[in-house]
Amino acid sequence: MEKLPEQMTVIGISRPGGPEVLVPETRPVPAPGPNEILIRVAVAGVNRPDVAQRSGTYPPPPGASDLPGLEVAGEVVALGEGASQYKPGDKVMSLVSGGGYAQYCVAHESIAMRNPAGLSMLEAGATPETLMTVWHNVFERGGLKAGETLLIHGGSSGIGTMAIQLAKAFGAKVIVTVGSKDKADACLRLGADHAVNYKTQDFVAEVKALTGGTGADLILDMVGGDYIEKNYDVAAIDGRIVQIAFLGGAKATVNFAKLMVKRLHHTGSTLRPRSIADKAAMVGAIEARVLPLMREGRIKPLIDSSFPLDKAADAHRRMETGAHIGKIVLTV
Amino acid sequence: MEKLPEQMTVIGISRPGGPEVLVPETRPVPAPGPNEILIRVAVAGVNRPDVAQRSGTYPPPPGASDLPGLEVAGEVVALGEGASQYKPGDKVMSLVSGGGYAQYCVAHESIAMRNPAGLSMLEAGATPETLMTVWHNVFERGGLKAGETLLIHGGSSGIGTMAIQLAKAFGAKVIVTVGSKDKADACLRLGADHAVNYKTQDFVAEVKALTGGTGADLILDMVGGDYIEKNYDVAAIDGRIVQIAFLGGAKATVNFAKLMVKRLHHTGSTLRPRSIADKAAMVGAIEARVLPLMREGRIKPLIDSSFPLDKAADAHRRMETGAHIGKIVLTV
Repeated sequence: MEKLPEQMTVIGISRPGGPEVLVPETRPVPAPGPNEILIRVAVAGVNRPDVAQRSGTYPPPPGASDLPGLEVAGEVVALGEGASQYKPGDKVMSLVSGGGYAQYCVAHESIAMRNPAGLSMLEAGATPETLMTVWHNVFERGGLKAGETLLIHGGSSGIGTMAIQLAKAFGAKVIVTVGSKDKADACLRLGADHAVNYKTQDFVAEVKALTGGTGADLILDMVGGDYIEKNYDVAAIDGRIVQIAFLGGAKATVNFAKLMVKRLHHTGSTLRPRSIADKAAMVGAIEARVLPLMREGRIKPLIDSSFPLDKAADAHRRMETGAHIGKIVLTV
Repeated sequence: MEKLPEQMTVIGISRPGGPEVLVPETRPVPAPGPNEILIRVAVAGVNRPDVAQRSGTYPPPPGASDLPGLEVAGEVVALGEGASQYKPGDKVMSLVSGGGYAQYCVAHESIAMRNPAGLSMLEAGATPETLMTVWHNVFERGGLKAGETLLIHGGSSGIGTMAIQLAKAFGAKVIVTVGSKDKADACLRLGADHAVNYKTQDFVAEVKALTGGTGADLILDMVGGDYIEKNYDVAAIDGRIVQIAFLGGAKATVNFAKLMVKRLHHTGSTLRPRSIADKAAMVGAIEARVLPLMREGRIKPLIDSSFPLDKAADAHRRMETGAHIGKIVLTV
């Protein structure tokens, strides 16, 4: 194996605060533990939880790196004890438990995925977090089936743009809510059947009209707040609502009679605290069901913008404007 | 077939109001429609929805009788066109779409069940509504598995006392909440592992302690209101909450982050509006899985009290005190 440097450049969180607290630091290159691989990071995805962690509202779980960054793509450069699925030189993308904003990052080999031929390195670095989030919440947890209607709030987000493509690939009808004409157009180009502008339209009435009064079979919601009761209103009988974030607030006053009478299922999940075994099971399903579509180039993340690692603060500023469409990434 | 009278005595709802609005009336004996059977009612179960219907807050669904009464047991006395599963003289119990508080009542043959040998007629009349509600919500919707912990709010209600027995018969651990020592004792006698008095104890802390900190895998809740967030607190990771009523109010302010972070499933259902096909599917599963246990006398409804049909108002008064333990029935 090549000789690795002892030190590396990372982006640390100097203190809880705004984007300006993201500053370059020098840290030791981490050593991969049992069944882990060390990746020389080429691209690190930027995700909402990074922003929350930077702000101090989402501390990393015990044992995780204190550095931001939950997904990377790059080249395998070292193997931990017992790691056997990849060899140095392999190009991989992986969810990581933190520390993605760095020149090197460790990942568990059972969670890493070989970069699909259809993706550029930039796209690979934008893939693991959104792909696993969408796969688990829309298909495993939400049980989306061909012919059903999926309503995606935040359709133009990294998660939304991945969810549109996956849901369409598996035969569902897709309606998204977005906040601008540009975002609506981007979602429609990706295959969404309808885009509702929540700033100018009543999404409950629109989705009801678009489904002949039936409502949505599955709702992927990252908004919460007053969307929760509206989701109960717009869901079909026996509909499912999967909560993956609360950009509009987690606390809400809701009439739960709607949930009972319509026999709804309200659930949700977060990816980061899941066990390695749970994540590996998701990756196994994704390798079987989704990566073939990515290798053919049929599904790829929509890239909004990329920033050099030392401009991570600008990447966070871009995300916090909410103007982005698709994924924001850092190049190392 | 025997000659049936043209008129019968029923209990009608003279106007929305208290128990006193339940008054005897004379109505034509109903004619069974296609695939329906006419039952000479021996026993009619009293259920919470009857009280709500009497109060004017729960109108009968379109096409249903305006008379109260959602379950009966008695003897088949006439068959509608195409009805072939039962013959006159058969003793049956059945969920009905209304009209149970009467000398005669029609039921769809696919929903009727032959009275199990282990039950008296009084017990049979107290069975269909609670059995179908518990079976569907605890097992089909809630997915209770052997070894799991079920928390039942309202453990001493008709539904609660049936749920205790069924959950124990299928290998679950059962914790109930109740409001008195008498009710706790009744639940423990039926097999509940623990009874928590919600008036003197913090059920969240108690259930956590009783499960080694894990919480309840499944919660059957008929209370709602401020129990909803407490249910999120006391549920295990990946736990399920099934809402079957809102005696404490349907509107609540809740922190849904708890639902997301713990990956809970919150759902619910009501039985009355389900299609005949849905109800028949439940009955089919019950005939296969539960009636054998009832025939052996291992499971039977706990009877709180019985009242003659013309004392239906007293039966409602008893239910509204909340002092009852188990089912209240009317004898015809």
